[in-house]
Amino acid sequence: MKASLKSALTLTALFFISACGAEKPTDSTWRKLALQNTVLLTLPHGKVVIELAPQFSPKHVAQFSQLTQQGFYDQTKFYRVIDGFVAQAGPKDGSKKDRSVPLLVMEAEWQTDKSWSYTQVQEKDLFAEKTGFKDSFAVAYQADNDDGLGKAWLTHCPGTVAMARNNEADSASSHFYFVIGQAPRYLDRIMTIFGRVVYGMQHIQAIQRTEAMQGDYAVDHRDFTKIVSMQLMSDVAKADQIHIEVENTESTAFGERLVKRRAREGDFFYKKPPPVLDVCQIPIRSRRIK
Amino acid sequence: MKASLKSALTLTALFFISACGAEKPTDSTWRKLALQNTVLLTLPHGKVVIELAPQFSPKHVAQFSQLTQQGFYDQTKFYRVIDGFVAQAGPKDGSKKDRSVPLLVMEAEWQTDKSWSYTQVQEKDLFAEKTGFKDSFAVAYQADNDDGLGKAWLTHCPGTVAMARNNEADSASSHFYFVIGQAPRYLDRIMTIFGRVVYGMQHIQAIQRTEAMQGDYAVDHRDFTKIVSMQLMSDVAKADQIHIEVENTESTAFGERLVKRRAREGDFFYKKPPPVLDVCQIPIRSRRIK
Repeated sequence: MKASLKSALTLTALFFISACGAEKPTDSTWRKLALQNTVLLTLPHGKVVIELAPQFSPKHVAQFSQLTQQGFYDQTKFYRVIDGFVAQAGPKDGSKKDRSVPLLVMEAEWQTDKSWSYTQVQEKDLFAEKTGFKDSFAVAYQADNDDGLGKAWLTHCPGTVAMARNNEADSASSHFYFVIGQAPRYLDRIMTIFGRVVYGMQHIQAIQRTEAMQGDYAVDHRDFTKIVSMQLMSDVAKADQIHIEVENTESTAFGERLVKRRAREGDFFYKKPPPVLDVCQIPIRSRRIK
Repeated sequence: MKASLKSALTLTALFFISACGAEKPTDSTWRKLALQNTVLLTLPHGKVVIELAPQFSPKHVAQFSQLTQQGFYDQTKFYRVIDGFVAQAGPKDGSKKDRSVPLLVMEAEWQTDKSWSYTQVQEKDLFAEKTGFKDSFAVAYQADNDDGLGKAWLTHCPGTVAMARNNEADSASSHFYFVIGQAPRYLDRIMTIFGRVVYGMQHIQAIQRTEAMQGDYAVDHRDFTKIVSMQLMSDVAKADQIHIEVENTESTAFGERLVKRRAREGDFFYKKPPPVLDVCQIPIRSRRIK
């Protein structure tokens, strides 16, 4: 019984690696984040680091980085914070300074061809044909045809950072949100995700909720959580920089972790769960380095 | 186009109600929670209310209620709090008072027959044949055969309260956890869920994490969040009681809400998401009453 389980796992592992195309798993388990590609968000109660995703959403990242460098977000508030859903911030202070920020064209999905590869996690996910990771970001994939053309997109998970917008598709500019609850995957492909939290997610979870439940005391807007400062890490004084490495989701070690996570072989699992993985329920590890 | 969409929705709604069996949807949108069936958890930073589930896990609820009435949990700490996963509490203070608490036999799923009904949410969910709600609790269902026999279980979602255990199935007694991140559905059927948070979930999210990431400062155990007190609401002084009503998931109004949530007809959804629902991503509303 145990032997047959083991060989089934090996098969899964092989399938796994061969199915995911051209990019060879590397042996470097960790990937260092470039300082100009991370953001330090200082909240009154703690520090948060965001990894930006210019490879997926270049224009959103460029605009967000520029606004960050201008001090645009400093002292703005999280004005729409719904428990289990999102914490949204931006200038909603009467200054109307957001009106002068250019609107962005949606970057919520992209075309792929045969050369595109990712680390596959799950087929027949509830919301997508396939899910997986690319550069430590959760992605979903859908084939367009048998010629290897398809679409891929970053998928909403807890810790996702995305740009808010009005009803029109291309209406995002500066207001943004963190996902703080169960993955709102129905927002995939219609909102531009441009980053993810890699440090201090507990402080994002502790942001003051702005909407009280019916019958409860209203939340005073003076209690809304303020952004003390938002800076590109490369602009932060050296002594205050937070250097982060994240798990390399293209590594052999990560692939092995997925296989283990799916199989749940430990004694604790006296009855095995279904051998499936929710891409948003796989923590991508970070570590702090000097 | 709009007309055909509407009739499709009506069909879905009819299917919905007829598919879910004997229990008639009522017209009462809200259900008042009995005071002896709710628990007031006072944390240093806020108040939390838990709805217990004696109809699903009678022995776990009985033991938890008894321990609560004995003041067993007062001054104990959340000693295992992992961001995006769980916040676990119990006496881990050297007192060893947990050793005298009887072990509980697992109550993680139950047999159903044709007479069992629930409000169905989704077929072919990633982790289960079917998902839905019963008495405002998220449930999953699996048919055993064509004769209408099956199994149902409470499913792990954010806000779920369940009893912790050792490796052995029937080893739970007093330590318990809240789910604070993306639903760990792989714990379904092997852990006994016995309640859910109906008020103050933001305070559960703000519990001090106990595990620091690699390379970061260790968290001092003196900073771990303490339970100030845990009481059955029926034992709380009248002036301090929190009375809660929750959405009646057997109501017509709730069924209609599900249909709308699946269809996403608003202008904001300029491109429609897949018409599926994650049972853990449907907030069950609470409201506070006098």
